[in-house]
Amino acid sequence: MPAFLSLHSSRRKTSTVSGAGEERIIARARRLFSGGARPAPGVVRGIDDDAAVLAPAGRGWLELLAIDTIVEGTHFAPATPPGRIGRKALAVNISDIAAMGGIPMHAVVSLTLTGREPLAFVGRLMAGIAEMAGAHGVTVVGGDTVGGPALSITIALRGRVEPSRVCYRSGARPGDLVAVTGRLGGSFASGRHLDFMPRAAEARWLVSHAQPSSMMDLSDGLALDAQRMACASGVALHLDAAAIPVARGSSLDAALHEGEDFELLCCFPAGRISGRETGIFARKFSVTLSVIGEVRKGAPGVFIDGGKLTPRGFDHFGPEL
Amino acid sequence: MPAFLSLHSSRRKTSTVSGAGEERIIARARRLFSGGARPAPGVVRGIDDDAAVLAPAGRGWLELLAIDTIVEGTHFAPATPPGRIGRKALAVNISDIAAMGGIPMHAVVSLTLTGREPLAFVGRLMAGIAEMAGAHGVTVVGGDTVGGPALSITIALRGRVEPSRVCYRSGARPGDLVAVTGRLGGSFASGRHLDFMPRAAEARWLVSHAQPSSMMDLSDGLALDAQRMACASGVALHLDAAAIPVARGSSLDAALHEGEDFELLCCFPAGRISGRETGIFARKFSVTLSVIGEVRKGAPGVFIDGGKLTPRGFDHFGPEL
Repeated sequence: MPAFLSLHSSRRKTSTVSGAGEERIIARARRLFSGGARPAPGVVRGIDDDAAVLAPAGRGWLELLAIDTIVEGTHFAPATPPGRIGRKALAVNISDIAAMGGIPMHAVVSLTLTGREPLAFVGRLMAGIAEMAGAHGVTVVGGDTVGGPALSITIALRGRVEPSRVCYRSGARPGDLVAVTGRLGGSFASGRHLDFMPRAAEARWLVSHAQPSSMMDLSDGLALDAQRMACASGVALHLDAAAIPVARGSSLDAALHEGEDFELLCCFPAGRISGRETGIFARKFSVTLSVIGEVRKGAPGVFIDGGKLTPRGFDHFGPEL
Repeated sequence: MPAFLSLHSSRRKTSTVSGAGEERIIARARRLFSGGARPAPGVVRGIDDDAAVLAPAGRGWLELLAIDTIVEGTHFAPATPPGRIGRKALAVNISDIAAMGGIPMHAVVSLTLTGREPLAFVGRLMAGIAEMAGAHGVTVVGGDTVGGPALSITIALRGRVEPSRVCYRSGARPGDLVAVTGRLGGSFASGRHLDFMPRAAEARWLVSHAQPSSMMDLSDGLALDAQRMACASGVALHLDAAAIPVARGSSLDAALHEGEDFELLCCFPAGRISGRETGIFARKFSVTLSVIGEVRKGAPGVFIDGGKLTPRGFDHFGPEL
């Protein structure tokens, strides 16, 4: 499991979060917050994607709003240098905005501190946020600090995207090709889960030059995230094991199930992503763009070399694997 | 101290968060995130107020963005019914948007769960958020769930406000009257810190009918929050002890220092808030609007009956009182 803290699995009969998994919580949130069949004013896309898409009146841009929390013991080890914690806290959010095809703009930061942190530690943590913000043109515009039992950072990030470029998880269609940026697996072991650079420029290039039909970032493992894309799009994703780009020193199993890769998973209508585009992409960003499969009709699911892939990945509340 | 969890005060020589206080963290954030003298594109007001104020191109409204975290043991006791936790998590954010004179619109929710919570508990927690959202026309548009050592909820809330109505902490001017809504003190003891209704409609009425020069919500105690307003405005606030509306069963000391009242503290140019306005306000909302002092020239600070008031209030990382 790609977590420093293993969540306790419950032995009680009561259905707990730990036993039931994250997906049931998301499903319940969807029912509670959707407000019925009628979409709320200004909401283009709510729960179910990397970020919310909002459409304020009278502008040429859609707005994006994402939120992510990282917690000591779950997303970083207690001894992690504070600057790396700070940069990760913002990077995971930038990755969400990028996955919608958007440009990140304004962040608000909520710090939960135990009170025992040296002030210099908090300063370096915030400097890590500021450095990541500077690298992506993000401005931190507010926040708060509260006391709690463990260090935790939540950032909400506002961005924007052109209506012609916004990219959902739900757009994959039979006949599309499935592709992934970079290399997967071993993110925790290598420290890449702290140091990854969110694929913001890469995602902007993709929505501008190759128009993916569907895109999301990989945070909980290719197997589980591809399953989410398959369900959102109502299609089957057929992956070719040999084509999956495994990070050096890692394994196919880790690439499929570990999580925290923060690469982009995309689908493209056939013809939009040929060797020419992947070549330009690789030269421009020094990052590979690998075609790893295709989209077919069928019950939503993920297949690898023709066999059904169990959507096992990092579930914060799933049973221990 | 208005917290269920007393933060440990540090005995080490190193300057810790606990020893140094929240204000120093805010000051450091201001330096790190302000981006120098030149304001970032689209940012009208960043760190230092209840919510950030953003000005996207080509619209008649300013945007607001606020974030707040509530943590088990700090903002609610472990045995608190989940519905009340959920409603508070959103109410504190609505209070921030209200304090800018704005209308809350879209929320994203990040839940940190231990994994041991029954699913029904999380359902009731989210139902509490949904109920508060419904009462204020807010739509929950996304979020995430992560595992951590204690239950904690962070909500980021987006709102809007007309440029003519936006209200900062920094607008108090010598000669203004100081006023407060409702009654202060005893919020934790009475359970009001969970059940308060954010003064959203009241704030909208005030910015529409009485145009406060300065406004903020009271979360850390009148003494400390008034000090923040005095510093932001560069003025002295002179309060009249006898005029401060103390909640039934509470005391002046509690009204000044306890926090979690979530009432509005406002200043008004003289003449804009007479007995006529306070009467209309009281009848319309069944909430008092009490004039409690006046703004004078002088070094920024808060005075009560002529004596300097130590800005003691709830500081998440201050020394134990």
